[in-house]
Amino acid sequence: MYNAVVARVMEYHDQLGLSRERFAELAEGFHDDSYAGRDYRRLPDYRKGIEKGTVLVAGTVVRGFPKIPRCLVLDSGIPQHFDGEIAVEEKLDGYNVRVARIDGDVFAFTRSGIVCPFTTHKARSLLPVDRFFEQYPDRMLCGEMIGPENPYTTADCYDVDSIAFHAFDIQDRKSGESLPVEERRAACEALGIPQVDLFGIYKPSEAVESTPEIIDDLDSRGREGIVMKTVDGGQQLKYTTSAANQGDLAFAFGLPFDYGRDFSFRRLIREGFQSVEFGDTEAERRERAHGLGESLLVPMADAIETVEEGERLGERHTVRAEPRVVDALLDHFREQSLSIDIERDRRVEGQRVLTFSKQIQRSTDKIDTYLDGTIVTE
Amino acid sequence: MYNAVVARVMEYHDQLGLSRERFAELAEGFHDDSYAGRDYRRLPDYRKGIEKGTVLVAGTVVRGFPKIPRCLVLDSGIPQHFDGEIAVEEKLDGYNVRVARIDGDVFAFTRSGIVCPFTTHKARSLLPVDRFFEQYPDRMLCGEMIGPENPYTTADCYDVDSIAFHAFDIQDRKSGESLPVEERRAACEALGIPQVDLFGIYKPSEAVESTPEIIDDLDSRGREGIVMKTVDGGQQLKYTTSAANQGDLAFAFGLPFDYGRDFSFRRLIREGFQSVEFGDTEAERRERAHGLGESLLVPMADAIETVEEGERLGERHTVRAEPRVVDALLDHFREQSLSIDIERDRRVEGQRVLTFSKQIQRSTDKIDTYLDGTIVTE
Repeated sequence: MYNAVVARVMEYHDQLGLSRERFAELAEGFHDDSYAGRDYRRLPDYRKGIEKGTVLVAGTVVRGFPKIPRCLVLDSGIPQHFDGEIAVEEKLDGYNVRVARIDGDVFAFTRSGIVCPFTTHKARSLLPVDRFFEQYPDRMLCGEMIGPENPYTTADCYDVDSIAFHAFDIQDRKSGESLPVEERRAACEALGIPQVDLFGIYKPSEAVESTPEIIDDLDSRGREGIVMKTVDGGQQLKYTTSAANQGDLAFAFGLPFDYGRDFSFRRLIREGFQSVEFGDTEAERRERAHGLGESLLVPMADAIETVEEGERLGERHTVRAEPRVVDALLDHFREQSLSIDIERDRRVEGQRVLTFSKQIQRSTDKIDTYLDGTIVTE
Repeated sequence: MYNAVVARVMEYHDQLGLSRERFAELAEGFHDDSYAGRDYRRLPDYRKGIEKGTVLVAGTVVRGFPKIPRCLVLDSGIPQHFDGEIAVEEKLDGYNVRVARIDGDVFAFTRSGIVCPFTTHKARSLLPVDRFFEQYPDRMLCGEMIGPENPYTTADCYDVDSIAFHAFDIQDRKSGESLPVEERRAACEALGIPQVDLFGIYKPSEAVESTPEIIDDLDSRGREGIVMKTVDGGQQLKYTTSAANQGDLAFAFGLPFDYGRDFSFRRLIREGFQSVEFGDTEAERRERAHGLGESLLVPMADAIETVEEGERLGERHTVRAEPRVVDALLDHFREQSLSIDIERDRRVEGQRVLTFSKQIQRSTDKIDTYLDGTIVTE
């Protein structure tokens, strides 16, 4: 009890390890928000010295999940980044969630620090949260929400019917310090928490040998990639498959004026370096190029045709939950000023199954303008 | 003589049609330069109210060639932009040149207003400049330098052995006002000046019908596209082939970190709109996508392999001219701080035939960095 009281009176800047002055500078970057009557503040962007998605709530801190650095070349990037043993685990393509307990209540925070009512409900019902927080009261469970029925992402390459949580980290809620990989995996195993696949623990030179095969296998299954981390969980590095690079491009070019040029350029560049490092034959390089071209042109032409037919572009998602949870999600979107078109609304075994589309205005409008004959001077 | 004297004493801002104040604001954007002992000032970028490449020399103005607007959709863009009859001419893929006579000397100016010694020599030797300026003392001859032996561009889809000039405009040197299309074409014909192909003179509705076929034909020959202009030469609009879009992308991705993201994005978008407007079948769309993918990936992977092998990236060109002209071009590049590698240097029938490579530092360095395992946080 004594420790808890001390934590409550520690100021935010101390909990974050920042000077009072630096914290004061950052403070205006935080947005005010609330969930179920509880106010919180969150940092929606990256800032120097503090993770995006960091949350201040009830006198305590929920630190943002760090951006994981990436290499474009495994062969040189792994030994450059790591000295000792590293665990190679699967990187899943869903949305990043931190599950934390604040004053006795469990919340699920998205990457940008929003408490999502839908995800909070799923975390509470899918995970043994009481047992987890009994064992780790000051930690948060970090993982990926994957599966076809989720309100944020669309990858559908997993053997998941609706939605599932897979853990990849157990971090100190304030400092962000990770449990060592093997301890974390054993804890998840013991608690029955699903977790990401571990491909092995390697020396850097072994990882250089093994990771291309792992990537090839993941690529053939349409999966996203790998995260490599020191066994103490302190340092991370990621690398993605061609399927992920091209999938991202297809997504971006389906909404061509809403994604940054840099987003697409980076993924094109990754394909170039991978083609060289993986020693594509001329035929393999051509095949990769054809996939790349299709991932750009086909969704873009589809989007143009959609607008030409007078329809609006959107991101389609399906969610399945108790009716009150779906209502809360829709209220949540409304508060965020998202425009939602309901496409299908069913009840299945007491659950509400809702298919909706988030309207994407900019691409719709821009395409419409060009279809109308607008002249560009560029 | 009287008019000429008046022109000489007219101030620059009057010749440019700008207020004294606006001209004073723009003045600092002009760069000082000189050619063969003659000083001039040129505007290297686009500014509001004045064309890029505008030159101030010997008390007179050589107005920059205007940026030609573009439509992404012919069907709506043509009637949107034009009311009356338009001439449809070929857009050539070379470099834009203005040939003007200043104080009795003929000079060739590149797009950004540089007097190029090589191009000046070629203009003087390829064109009947004396007869042209006798007839049009206050005008400039605007056209494209094309062909495989030129120091700036690489398109090689024309039936030109070395280098050729094709006229597409005869403009007032100060105001930029064009001769009417038919008058200009007749003048070039009479003077024996090669000129761009004319596909026809159409009403807007006829042009909507005819231009897709013209574009398809040009595309099949690897050509760049068309320029449509009102018959008085006052308004222009351009549209390019898939071959040109993909050729530009291949060029850009051969030097992936030297071309802006916007440069590539715009060309990708053009392909999307063309695929829809030209009614690509599914197979045609896939074929276009494959070409697009190859134009991105293959040159990029080649560039990465080039750097991996320890070589530098560059833009290779060949020029053929009298030795003193080639010397002057090399001096000119040196003055511009370009780094040139000589790859081949021959004499053929008294001409010097020089193949050289302009070193491209940024892409070479960036690729080298990523090959060394540099980590990116993005």
